[in-house]
Amino acid sequence: MNIKEMMGRETIRPLLMQARYGIEKESQRVDLAGDLARTDHPAALGNRSFHPYIQTDFAETQLELITPVTDSVEEVLAYLLAIHDVAQRSMPENEMMWPLSMPPALPEKEEDIEIAKLERHEDVLYRRFLAREYGKRKQMVSGIHFNFEFGLELIEALFQQQAELPSLESFKTELYMKVARNFLRYRWLLTYLFGATPLSEEGYFDEEDRPQEPVRSIRTSRFGYVNRPDVKVSYASLDRYSEDLAENVAQGRLSEEKEFYAPIRMRGGKKVADLFHTGIRYVELRNIDLNPFDRVGINAGEIQFIHLFMLYLMWTEEKKPADEWVEEGNRISDAVALEHPMHQTAYLEEGRQLFAEMQQMAEELELDVQEVLDHYRSWLEKPEQTLAAHLFLAEEGQAVLGQKLAKKYYDEAYAKPYQLAGFSEMELSTQSLLFDALQEGLEIDVLDRSDQFVSLKHQDHLEYVKNGNMTSKDTYIAPLLMANKTVTKDVLARAGFRVPNGETFTSLEAARKAYPRFVQHSFVIKPKSTNYGIGITIFKDGPSLEDFVSGLKIAFKEDESIIIEEFMEGTEYRFFVIDHQVKAVLLRIPANVVGDGEKTIKQLVEEKNQDPLRGSNHRSPLELIQLGDLEKLMLKEQGFTIDSVPESGQQVFLRENSNISTGGDSIDITDEVDESYKKIAIEAVAALGANISGIDLIIPDKDKPFSEEGDYGIIEANFNPAMHMHIYPYAGKSRRLTLEVLRLLFPELLN
Amino acid sequence: MNIKEMMGRETIRPLLMQARYGIEKESQRVDLAGDLARTDHPAALGNRSFHPYIQTDFAETQLELITPVTDSVEEVLAYLLAIHDVAQRSMPENEMMWPLSMPPALPEKEEDIEIAKLERHEDVLYRRFLAREYGKRKQMVSGIHFNFEFGLELIEALFQQQAELPSLESFKTELYMKVARNFLRYRWLLTYLFGATPLSEEGYFDEEDRPQEPVRSIRTSRFGYVNRPDVKVSYASLDRYSEDLAENVAQGRLSEEKEFYAPIRMRGGKKVADLFHTGIRYVELRNIDLNPFDRVGINAGEIQFIHLFMLYLMWTEEKKPADEWVEEGNRISDAVALEHPMHQTAYLEEGRQLFAEMQQMAEELELDVQEVLDHYRSWLEKPEQTLAAHLFLAEEGQAVLGQKLAKKYYDEAYAKPYQLAGFSEMELSTQSLLFDALQEGLEIDVLDRSDQFVSLKHQDHLEYVKNGNMTSKDTYIAPLLMANKTVTKDVLARAGFRVPNGETFTSLEAARKAYPRFVQHSFVIKPKSTNYGIGITIFKDGPSLEDFVSGLKIAFKEDESIIIEEFMEGTEYRFFVIDHQVKAVLLRIPANVVGDGEKTIKQLVEEKNQDPLRGSNHRSPLELIQLGDLEKLMLKEQGFTIDSVPESGQQVFLRENSNISTGGDSIDITDEVDESYKKIAIEAVAALGANISGIDLIIPDKDKPFSEEGDYGIIEANFNPAMHMHIYPYAGKSRRLTLEVLRLLFPELLN
Repeated sequence: MNIKEMMGRETIRPLLMQARYGIEKESQRVDLAGDLARTDHPAALGNRSFHPYIQTDFAETQLELITPVTDSVEEVLAYLLAIHDVAQRSMPENEMMWPLSMPPALPEKEEDIEIAKLERHEDVLYRRFLAREYGKRKQMVSGIHFNFEFGLELIEALFQQQAELPSLESFKTELYMKVARNFLRYRWLLTYLFGATPLSEEGYFDEEDRPQEPVRSIRTSRFGYVNRPDVKVSYASLDRYSEDLAENVAQGRLSEEKEFYAPIRMRGGKKVADLFHTGIRYVELRNIDLNPFDRVGINAGEIQFIHLFMLYLMWTEEKKPADEWVEEGNRISDAVALEHPMHQTAYLEEGRQLFAEMQQMAEELELDVQEVLDHYRSWLEKPEQTLAAHLFLAEEGQAVLGQKLAKKYYDEAYAKPYQLAGFSEMELSTQSLLFDALQEGLEIDVLDRSDQFVSLKHQDHLEYVKNGNMTSKDTYIAPLLMANKTVTKDVLARAGFRVPNGETFTSLEAARKAYPRFVQHSFVIKPKSTNYGIGITIFKDGPSLEDFVSGLKIAFKEDESIIIEEFMEGTEYRFFVIDHQVKAVLLRIPANVVGDGEKTIKQLVEEKNQDPLRGSNHRSPLELIQLGDLEKLMLKEQGFTIDSVPESGQQVFLRENSNISTGGDSIDITDEVDESYKKIAIEAVAALGANISGIDLIIPDKDKPFSEEGDYGIIEANFNPAMHMHIYPYAGKSRRLTLEVLRLLFPELLN
Repeated sequence: MNIKEMMGRETIRPLLMQARYGIEKESQRVDLAGDLARTDHPAALGNRSFHPYIQTDFAETQLELITPVTDSVEEVLAYLLAIHDVAQRSMPENEMMWPLSMPPALPEKEEDIEIAKLERHEDVLYRRFLAREYGKRKQMVSGIHFNFEFGLELIEALFQQQAELPSLESFKTELYMKVARNFLRYRWLLTYLFGATPLSEEGYFDEEDRPQEPVRSIRTSRFGYVNRPDVKVSYASLDRYSEDLAENVAQGRLSEEKEFYAPIRMRGGKKVADLFHTGIRYVELRNIDLNPFDRVGINAGEIQFIHLFMLYLMWTEEKKPADEWVEEGNRISDAVALEHPMHQTAYLEEGRQLFAEMQQMAEELELDVQEVLDHYRSWLEKPEQTLAAHLFLAEEGQAVLGQKLAKKYYDEAYAKPYQLAGFSEMELSTQSLLFDALQEGLEIDVLDRSDQFVSLKHQDHLEYVKNGNMTSKDTYIAPLLMANKTVTKDVLARAGFRVPNGETFTSLEAARKAYPRFVQHSFVIKPKSTNYGIGITIFKDGPSLEDFVSGLKIAFKEDESIIIEEFMEGTEYRFFVIDHQVKAVLLRIPANVVGDGEKTIKQLVEEKNQDPLRGSNHRSPLELIQLGDLEKLMLKEQGFTIDSVPESGQQVFLRENSNISTGGDSIDITDEVDESYKKIAIEAVAALGANISGIDLIIPDKDKPFSEEGDYGIIEANFNPAMHMHIYPYAGKSRRLTLEVLRLLFPELLN
C-alpha cells in the first residue's frame, strides 16, 4: 500500500484539505489582579452534569471549554470564540480567564486548591485519586486538546484505492496508527513552534526536580504532568497498544485507561477496545500549549499548520521499527521542550528536512499552503519568533504579561455585550439566542449563518429556530396572517378588538375616490405589507386632494395594495407577547438630544452617539443619530440649526418617526404599563393564533386602566418582532427575550 | 328629522354608496331536456341540516342558493357565481338549473311533486301544511330574495345628525320602516323593469283563475304565490306591524309569522319581536323575478339600480298616511304586473317622475350612477327592453328558451372545471379549495383575494388558509426549513436519508476552486433557494472549467448562495404528503408530442394544445406547449424542424426540463409506485417536521422495492407544493388534494 502515491492521484488530491476539527481548551479562572479565583464554577453556566461546552477540569477554578466538531477552521474557531464570550460573561465581573498554560501563582497550602465540585461521585473520587497520585499542583496546568479527523470522503476514497485491507475500519485504524507513530516521532516540531510554557510561577513545583533554566515547554517535557516512567505502551499496532494499556492497568501502574497521558490518543469509541469494531475515527493531540497571544489559545495559522503536518505524517514513510521510532521521538521532543527558548534547536537540520519535505508534498499534491509553510519555517530559523521566546522576552515578566493579556481579552468580551464573538455577522437576535443557548448548555448547531438558521438540542429534544424567534411553537398560518395587515385587522375586529377603521385599495384611481370619506378625520396612508415604516404618510388635518394623492403614490411605490386608515391619537407601545404572557413593553421615541445649556445640537448628538449600544446597519441594538437633510429640516422647523445650543433639560427631536433604525430611543416600560393593556395584547395575539408576536397598541394613557372603547387601538402585529431593542434598551430594564424563546422551546430544561 | 337634508351633508355624502348585500336564489333542477328532475338533492352537496349555501326550498328539486353577506356588488355576485358552479358540478351530469322563475311543465299528478326531504321533521311538516294550504304547484315558482342593508357607518353618521330619536336601534327601525312603506308604494317600478314571468307552463295553474294574456310578472301579481286576501298587515309602525302579524296568527289566517309573504320583510332578529331590541337591521326584498338572461338570475346593473332605488326611498317623502300609501302601492304593483309586457305602462308618468327625482337626488348627493339611471330609464320608455318582453318575444317559446339558456349556463359551468366562477383570478389551488369547501358546506370567507387568504368555518371551528395549503397544521419553522435547500439536506442526511452530496458556496471564487472535486462525477449547479428550476445547470460528464464557471454564474444570478451537488441517476417523482400519508405521486415529463405519421410537429403541438386543461400563466392545470427558440433548438438537436412529420407512435420531446410550466405533462402514478418509496417520503417529511409537503425523490426503478442505498435520493421538499397538477393531471387519476387539506383541517366534518 503506497499511501504517498495514492495521495497524489487525481481523484484524491481535491479531497486532501477536508478534515474535521474539535478543540478542548482548559483555562484557570483568576481575579482581575491575576490571582487564582476562589469562587465556585459560575452558576449562570447551567448544569455541569450535561453541559456540552463548558465544564470544569481537575480544579473547581479550571474551566474546560469544548467546541462541537466542525468541518472548517473558521467554524471551530468561531465556536471557541463564542464559548469564551459566554464563559467570560457568565463569570463574576471581577473574574477573567488566565491565558497561559502555566497557572498563576498557586496557594501555599495544597488543600487550598479545590477539586472540581462535580455532581457524579465517581468523578470526584477520580480527581481525589489523581491528587494523591500526582499532587494537585501539577494538575493545574492547562492546554489545548486538538481533535483531528481526516475527511470521511478522503478516507473512503483512499480506501477504494487499495486492496490490502478488507474493511474501511481496518484501513482507518492502520492509517491513523501510522500517523500516530510519525506524530510521536516528529512532534518535537510542534513543541518547538508552539511550546509556550518557558517558566513556572510560585507554587507550581513543590520540589527541586524542575527545569533550572527557561525552556520551550515545561508542560510537554518530563517536568509536566506525565505518567510514571514505568508506564510503557507500544504503538506498533492497535492490538499491541490495547494489550499494553490493559497490562498497565492490571499491574496497577494506571488506575484506568484514561490515566494514560499520551501526547496523542486514538479515538473513536468510549474505550480503546471499541476501536476494534469502529476503527480509529480520529486522533486527539494533547501536546499543544495555550497560545497566550490569542484570545482563545490557538489560531487559524496553527490549525492550518497542524493539518498540513498531519497530511505529512500520513504521506511520509516510517524509517525505523515502531517502538524504536516512537522512543526516538519521545526523547527528541523532551530534549526540544527543555531547550532554552532563545536558542537554535539542536534538531534544526531535521526541522529543515521536515519543512523541505512538506514543501515537496504540498507541490506534488497541489496544496494551497505556501503562506503557512513560509510563516512557520521562519520560526524554525528564528527561535525568538516562537511563542516560548515571546513569553520569555516579556519585559514585565510572564505573570504580569498573563494578567495584562487576560484583561485585554476580558475587555474584548465586554466591549459589545450584545454580540457573540464568532457569530457577530449574524442578526443580533440570533446572537443573543445562541449566547443564551450556550450558557444554558443546549447543543447548538448553526445550520446556515446567512439565513439565521440554527438548531438547538437538549438530550433527544431537537428544535430549529430561524431569525431568533421563528420556531415550531407557531403555526405556519399565524405569521402569514400577521404579514397581511388587512387580514390582521379583519380578524382582530371580528374578535371584538378595536382597530383603526380603514380600507384597502389596489388602484390609485379607486383610492383617490375615497378622498371625501377620509378627509374629515386624521388618517394614515400605508402600503399593505411592509413592516419598517416605509411608505407611510400621516395626515392629521384634512390634506388637499393633491397632498392626498401624493401620499397614495408614496405608498403604492412599496406595494400593489395600500391601506387608508383612521389615525388614532395616543402613544404607540410595542408589547412583546410570548406563550400567552407579555414579557416586555417598549416605548420608542424619535431621535432626540437633551440640552445642557452649553453644547450645540451637533455636539450633543456626537456625545449621545458615543453610547456603545449605538452603531449602524442593525449591527447594534440602537442606531447612530444622523445629521442629514431630514434631521436638519426637522430642526429648521423648530427654529434650530445643528449649531444651536438648547437650554438645559430641553429635549430637541431630530426625527418625527420613532423607529429605532433612524436613531430613536427604546425605553422599557414593562413594569409601568397598566395590566389591563397587557391582557388586551395577550388576548389579541391569541385571537391571531400566534404564540410569539410584537403587537403595537396605541394608548392615550398607559397608567389609566382600560375601560372604554377609545382607550386603545391595535395598529399591527409583527410576526418577526425585533428582540434586541428589548434586551438592550436605551433606558429601563433589559428583558432577555431570547431566553424566553428558549423557555418556550425547552420547558423541561428551563422551567 | 329632515333625512333629505341630512343625506346631503358633506360628512354623509361619501358614505351613501356603502351597503351590504346578500342574495338567496331558488332554482328548479331539470334534466338536459328541460324537464323537472326526478332525483334527490345531490348527495355531493354535503348535509342540508347545516349547509350554509346550498339548501332546498319547498320541493326536493328546488335548490336554494344562499350567498354570504358582502360589502360590495362584485363580491355578492362572485359568491353567487361560485355557488352556482359548485351546485351545477355537484349535480348528476344530466341535470342543470332552470333559469326561469316560472317552473317548467309540472307533473300531471300533484303527488309527483316531491316535498324537500329535509332531516328536521318540523321542516317537512311545515311544507306539508303549505302544500295543503296553497297547493304544491304554486310553490314551484322561484325568485330572488335580495337582502339589503345600508352601510353601518352611514346609518351611524345619520343617527349622529339628529336628536329626535334617542337610540341607534330606534333610529334604524324608523328609517327602514319609512323605506319599507315607500318600497311598497313604488315597487311597481321594479315589477315593470325586472318582472320576468310573462307566461306559465303546463301544470302551474290548476284552475281557470289565471291571467288570460301574457303579463309582466305572474309571480308578483295576485296570481302568484300570495297570502289569502284577508291577511292584512299595517306598516305604519313596527308596533302596528308586529301586532297585526300576531293577530293574523292568532286568528289562524297565518300558521306562523314566516307564512306572511310580503314583498319586503323587516329583518334583524329571528322573530319580528326581536326587532324591538335590535332595531331593524336590514330588509329582504322578495319581489325580484329571476333574470333568465344572466347565469345567476341577477346582475350588477340590477343590484346597482336597486341600491339607488333604496336610497331614493330613504330620501323621498311619503305623500299619504301609511296604510293608504301602502295600499295604493299594492294596487299599482298588481296592475303593472298584469300589464302586457309589450305595452307602455299606465304609470309611465309616475315612472318618469321617479327617474327625474332619482336624477335630482343623484346630482344633489354627488352619486356616481348616471349610467345605470340612463340604462333603466330607457327601459321605462321602451317596454320591449324589459325582461318580460324578451321572454314574451322568444321565437322558440319561453320553455325552449329556458332549456337553451339552462344548457348554455350548464356548458359554462363545465367549460373550465378547474376554475371556480367568481374567483377565477385566484390561484387554481385556492379555487379548488374553495370549491370543495363550498361543496362540503364549510362557511368560507375570502379575506384577501390577491393574497390567496381565506378562512373556513364549521360551527365554532375556524381555520385560515393561504395559497391552498398553508395552514395551522404546519409549524412556522418547517416551511422555512424546506425553503432552505442546504438546511433541508442537512436535516435529512442526519436523519439517515440519502440526499445528493453537495456543497454550498457564497462566492464565485470559492466555488471555482471546487472544480476538481466535482469534475469527475455527474453534478448539478443550482441557486440555493429558488423553487422553479431557474438557474440550474446539469453536467453529466466532466465539463471544462469554462463551462463549469459559466454554470456557476447562471446560478449566482438567482441567489447569493449556490449549491453544487451530485447528480443522481433515475427518474424524479413528486410525492405529495399530507398528514403522514402519500396522497398523490406524480411523474412530470418534458413537453412532447407523439407522432401519427401524418401531422407535422407543429400540427401535433396545436392539436395537443386544444386540451382545455392547457392554458397560460398558471391559470390552467397544464401550460400550452410553446414553439419558441428553445423548443426549435431542441428539435434541431434531434434532427427535426417544426415541419417534420414524426412516425406513428414516435414521441418527440420539445424540452429537456420536465416542468409543467414549460408545457410538460403530469402523469399520476400514485397507485403504481412501490409502497416502500411512499414510506420513505412520509418519513422524510416527518423528519422535516412538516405536515404538508411535496417531496421530490429520484428513483431508478419505481417498481422495485427500495432495498439498498443507491435506490433513491431526495432532491428537495417543497413547502407550498402545487396541487392542481395532481387534481387535473394530463394522464392518470385525479387526486383531489384540496379535499385532503379540508380533511386535515376539519376531521370532525370530513372523516
